[in-house]
Amino acid sequence: MAFDSLDDICAFCRDLPGGDAHAAKVAMRRQQTLTKPPGSLGRLEELAVWLAQWQGRESPRLDRVSIAVFAGNHGVAARGVSAYPPAVTAQMVANFASGGAAINQIAELAGADLRVVPIELDRPTRDFTEAAAMDADEFLRAVNLGYRTVPEDCDLLAVGEMGIANTTTAAMLCAALAGGDAARWAGRGTGVDDGGLARKRAAIDAALDFHRGILGDPLAVAAALGGRELAGIAGAVLAARKHAIPVLLDGFVATSAVLPLARLDANALDHCRAGHVSAESGHRDLLRELGLVPLLDLDMRLGEASGAGVAILLLRAALACHAGMATFAEAGVSNASN
Amino acid sequence: MAFDSLDDICAFCRDLPGGDAHAAKVAMRRQQTLTKPPGSLGRLEELAVWLAQWQGRESPRLDRVSIAVFAGNHGVAARGVSAYPPAVTAQMVANFASGGAAINQIAELAGADLRVVPIELDRPTRDFTEAAAMDADEFLRAVNLGYRTVPEDCDLLAVGEMGIANTTTAAMLCAALAGGDAARWAGRGTGVDDGGLARKRAAIDAALDFHRGILGDPLAVAAALGGRELAGIAGAVLAARKHAIPVLLDGFVATSAVLPLARLDANALDHCRAGHVSAESGHRDLLRELGLVPLLDLDMRLGEASGAGVAILLLRAALACHAGMATFAEAGVSNASN
Repeated sequence: MAFDSLDDICAFCRDLPGGDAHAAKVAMRRQQTLTKPPGSLGRLEELAVWLAQWQGRESPRLDRVSIAVFAGNHGVAARGVSAYPPAVTAQMVANFASGGAAINQIAELAGADLRVVPIELDRPTRDFTEAAAMDADEFLRAVNLGYRTVPEDCDLLAVGEMGIANTTTAAMLCAALAGGDAARWAGRGTGVDDGGLARKRAAIDAALDFHRGILGDPLAVAAALGGRELAGIAGAVLAARKHAIPVLLDGFVATSAVLPLARLDANALDHCRAGHVSAESGHRDLLRELGLVPLLDLDMRLGEASGAGVAILLLRAALACHAGMATFAEAGVSNASN
Repeated sequence: MAFDSLDDICAFCRDLPGGDAHAAKVAMRRQQTLTKPPGSLGRLEELAVWLAQWQGRESPRLDRVSIAVFAGNHGVAARGVSAYPPAVTAQMVANFASGGAAINQIAELAGADLRVVPIELDRPTRDFTEAAAMDADEFLRAVNLGYRTVPEDCDLLAVGEMGIANTTTAAMLCAALAGGDAARWAGRGTGVDDGGLARKRAAIDAALDFHRGILGDPLAVAAALGGRELAGIAGAVLAARKHAIPVLLDGFVATSAVLPLARLDANALDHCRAGHVSAESGHRDLLRELGLVPLLDLDMRLGEASGAGVAILLLRAALACHAGMATFAEAGVSNASN
């Protein structure tokens, strides 16, 4: 399946596949029988049930875990909004390929397959302060590429990104779709100085004005104010919903990439959990906006799916307990709640 | 080494071994060269440096990780302060032995060796509302047992506990050594009802009054108002300091067990990190009191080192990045900070 038009995406989001309520119920019932006070494993219990619900399996599994990192370049980088030059996007993609980045180490530790998907790095999006970053066809191409990246049979997908200047793009999408101005959403990203931060905010506020006619249309915003790697993430998250695959979102950029989907349908992210909350200032605000409670809060702000990748370890812990623990009856332990 | 008297423990805490500042500096310098914006791995960077500091190794390792779970029984259980009967302590120790508990699954996932140390389960401490829970000799015996439990050559120690009624004991130690009354520290533990919670608070307030003469003496408090498994934890944490082993503390009970050490010397817990913050209400307050920032906040409240065990996974992620990532120079990535 691929989306032929923005309307196709809207139609998909109007008729989203639901989770498996029965599998969730069976998993929840099992949690009540395990040798621990009810609820005492906290979010590990909830995660096991969530995996059951979205995998549609009473006994969820994490045999095949996929991490997808999308990369793109951004016209707005020319406005001096990042501490790093745009060439770093391709350099980091090469670093991913040779195994030297943080996400390579984390993926190996988490037992996950890493797919890196650079999207037309030699064709940055247009500078959105003075044009549409992408037209509908360019946007759809990236969405469809993201959609096709997801292995239909994987048990969990973690999504992240790499793209110099893309916290500017993320803040742009948030300002356009969640309200407020640049000051609410733009932070220091990879570590921009005061001058860079001022330029970042000026670019976003200028673009809010330039594109004011489309701000009510989530997909028009995602195309005109977004980025290719963000579109790829949105496509991957849609594919995961289609194939009943639970998703861990990474940080500020990855979460902003799916904000347009949440604006199309309030339940569009039910199969997603926030792997972590980033130190990038807008992320906590965005997660609150989306009703997502992050699994980790470690002051990370690297992107490249690093936070979501670490959160995979928590899912493994949740599942290890869910599958491996003895019940009160099996262990001969007195159960106060019976 | 064993402690022959409470004074021996005081003397040890007056002359604590420090960390290795040079190893920490080398590790910190390496972090600055890795292919990521400086600081962008957040606490994962800090954890790698902390491991280097306390292992005294420029390249820290986690080849041998030990989880120690101490178990004990409590006279105060007779006051109806828990949702479970005291027999559950031994039943859960049997469950640990047969591999059915949460910590068994978590230890295996985290690549850790699990040691379960039941301490005189058939001899509960005395009810501290009307007597000293332990005399100095009983207390020292448990401390020394905990001390000897720690393998001198392990790279990391995680400590936890099992003991019906021991959140009452933990709240007791907090009230005695950190101030406030029972209402500040006593929560629902494994899930006690309103009547049980009232009895729990009444027992603590009664004991505060009964023992008011010793509240200024941390070790006297640890003996008279503590528990054997808590004393074991304190001993293990002292041994870890002696052998340059960093420590992950588990939840409310494990943290309360080392509060007496922190009262002997403000730096006594520098080699410790809080694995998580428990859902048990007093824990967040206690961590703040100790200046410890928890690594995880997952609404867990099981004890048995489960939160610290999950946090081992974060240390593995920190170390994987620290050891495995390429430097900017190795990867040919442009570094804005140079």
